[in-house]
Amino acid sequence: MREIIDLTKDLIRFKSTHTRPEEIQRCARFIETWFKEHDIPCVFMEFNGVPSVGALSAPRQIPVLLMSHIDVVNATDPLFEPFEKDGRLYGRGAIDDKYAAALSMILLKNRIESNRRRGLDDSTVPLGVLITGDEEVGGYHGARSALGGITCNFCIALDGGRVDKIVVKEKGILRLKVVAAGKTAHGARPWQGENAIERLMADCRIVKGFFEGLTEPEHWHRTMNLSLIHAGDSVNQVPDKAEATFDIRYTENDDVDDLIQRIGAAVSGKVITEEREPLFISPGSPYLDRLLALSTETRTGIAHGASDARFLTQFNIPGIVWGADGNSSQHSTDEHVEIQSIARLYDILDRFLTDIRENPI
Amino acid sequence: MREIIDLTKDLIRFKSTHTRPEEIQRCARFIETWFKEHDIPCVFMEFNGVPSVGALSAPRQIPVLLMSHIDVVNATDPLFEPFEKDGRLYGRGAIDDKYAAALSMILLKNRIESNRRRGLDDSTVPLGVLITGDEEVGGYHGARSALGGITCNFCIALDGGRVDKIVVKEKGILRLKVVAAGKTAHGARPWQGENAIERLMADCRIVKGFFEGLTEPEHWHRTMNLSLIHAGDSVNQVPDKAEATFDIRYTENDDVDDLIQRIGAAVSGKVITEEREPLFISPGSPYLDRLLALSTETRTGIAHGASDARFLTQFNIPGIVWGADGNSSQHSTDEHVEIQSIARLYDILDRFLTDIRENPI
Repeated sequence: MREIIDLTKDLIRFKSTHTRPEEIQRCARFIETWFKEHDIPCVFMEFNGVPSVGALSAPRQIPVLLMSHIDVVNATDPLFEPFEKDGRLYGRGAIDDKYAAALSMILLKNRIESNRRRGLDDSTVPLGVLITGDEEVGGYHGARSALGGITCNFCIALDGGRVDKIVVKEKGILRLKVVAAGKTAHGARPWQGENAIERLMADCRIVKGFFEGLTEPEHWHRTMNLSLIHAGDSVNQVPDKAEATFDIRYTENDDVDDLIQRIGAAVSGKVITEEREPLFISPGSPYLDRLLALSTETRTGIAHGASDARFLTQFNIPGIVWGADGNSSQHSTDEHVEIQSIARLYDILDRFLTDIRENPI
Repeated sequence: MREIIDLTKDLIRFKSTHTRPEEIQRCARFIETWFKEHDIPCVFMEFNGVPSVGALSAPRQIPVLLMSHIDVVNATDPLFEPFEKDGRLYGRGAIDDKYAAALSMILLKNRIESNRRRGLDDSTVPLGVLITGDEEVGGYHGARSALGGITCNFCIALDGGRVDKIVVKEKGILRLKVVAAGKTAHGARPWQGENAIERLMADCRIVKGFFEGLTEPEHWHRTMNLSLIHAGDSVNQVPDKAEATFDIRYTENDDVDDLIQRIGAAVSGKVITEEREPLFISPGSPYLDRLLALSTETRTGIAHGASDARFLTQFNIPGIVWGADGNSSQHSTDEHVEIQSIARLYDILDRFLTDIRENPI
């Protein structure tokens, strides 16, 4: 455990935010060097300037792939100085997602070393590790690009859930912008113009109507957040353009094309699809059954936020989202991970890999 | 007339926008030099970097002061190349307000020269001219500062109305910002936050209620324009702050303090008074009666926009807003002045001054 915590601290000290791409690079090179120093074959990949490191002991078809990321959201400098307190490790990236990179590195190292001590070939280790550098900004040049070149039977995105909750579904994202047009006029004669903000507000109420009455306890239904609104250049003019952006999260029960079409038909402004991301839906897997059998306290569940796991769905890779306990502190100023939960997670994964090696699926 | 048109063209060629304060300075210096070349005493004033030029032939108490301004609103370069077409002079500032500066310069010069030819003292010319440099941005360092040092019996702000319409009332301005607060949360879990934009939109509807049912034909009642709205930093967050700015124009029938208080009590957000400008209300004057008697086609009326004339009310100077015909083209890309109307205006003012000189009030 000490080894994982110390390595997590080393990773946290890299200020690997997307405002400092050079720090993401340095952190990725640190991981590459670490693998090489432990005599573990690894590949340093780079897509559009975003680094990923893959340590793929079984080159052709990896039974189990652990995926994590080293990029983090912005934070003030003190958050990059990790510290332990009351059984928790604090710092930016502690739970999201540097503990996961450290855990998977140490797990792979220990299993390879144990194998070598017994004179077995590295390829009998049923584990691969993929560490990416752009999960926080969409994963396009990290997970999406790297997963395209990897074949595996089962992928665990170590980036969500908690030890007793495996995430098997995450909502999809639909970002719509509504642009209302009006007619400008001098602010002293508003009756000569048509105010785009007032039209936009009417459209906002219409969009809101598509999300009313959806109140299941688990919120597994589509939701909407009116996240941005901007209009007006000059205080003494009737604005002739106003824009609002809606962050919509949808489930497998929504027909997204139909939703876009109906919103477009209902509002007076122009509707632009700014972003559309698929759902993550785990298809079920004998690996998952094996994992649940080993970890009797763990249940499957859902998550509202999206992650790189949606690319598993895109590439038809069976997988789950799972992780240590962070008490929903990711992205916050008191981001932390429960140290004991890392130990539990490590133990379950270690037994799971032994089980897979001894009883291949 | 040719002299006024040519001088107006010279003035239009200065790109005297507030993005180019050095051009406002150059234009003011051009006017100062012009007065000096015509041997007319003038003072170059500067308040907070804003130039004004005063040509005040009667140093103590000026019977009639003509006020205009040389600053203009932004425009593309071609608008600073004046041209004549179909009896109109086109260009930025043609009607707002460079023709007025040129007209008052030429009128003063002609009356002084005529006086001198007859061996009369300059002080018998009952006219002063004030040309300022910041009307378009509030007039604080132009008209407000310069008028404080001038005593006159009657001021004509040559910056509005038309030949057959003298403006004797302009609305006041009240600019209110409403700031709504909420509680941030991740955009995938909007039920955990409180959306400031939605609260702001509810407040906007409440503010709008204070202006409903006011529909007199001349619109001489308070009006409101929702001119700016801004909220949200990040597409995946519930916004915790949202701001809207209301441009309110009020009349003498409104109790502004009461209106602010009632709006503040009705909305859930915080109400900030960003700007408050007085009404212009002409108190009536024997000079105005004399002018109306001379110009039988001219009537008094109201205007919705505010101008530097509000400082006349502030300094208790009887006055009016009047001018040539521009067909409401000020600030537009086809800004122009009807050349014939300048001649009519000049003629009436010239006869008015003769009348004042011959029959002092």
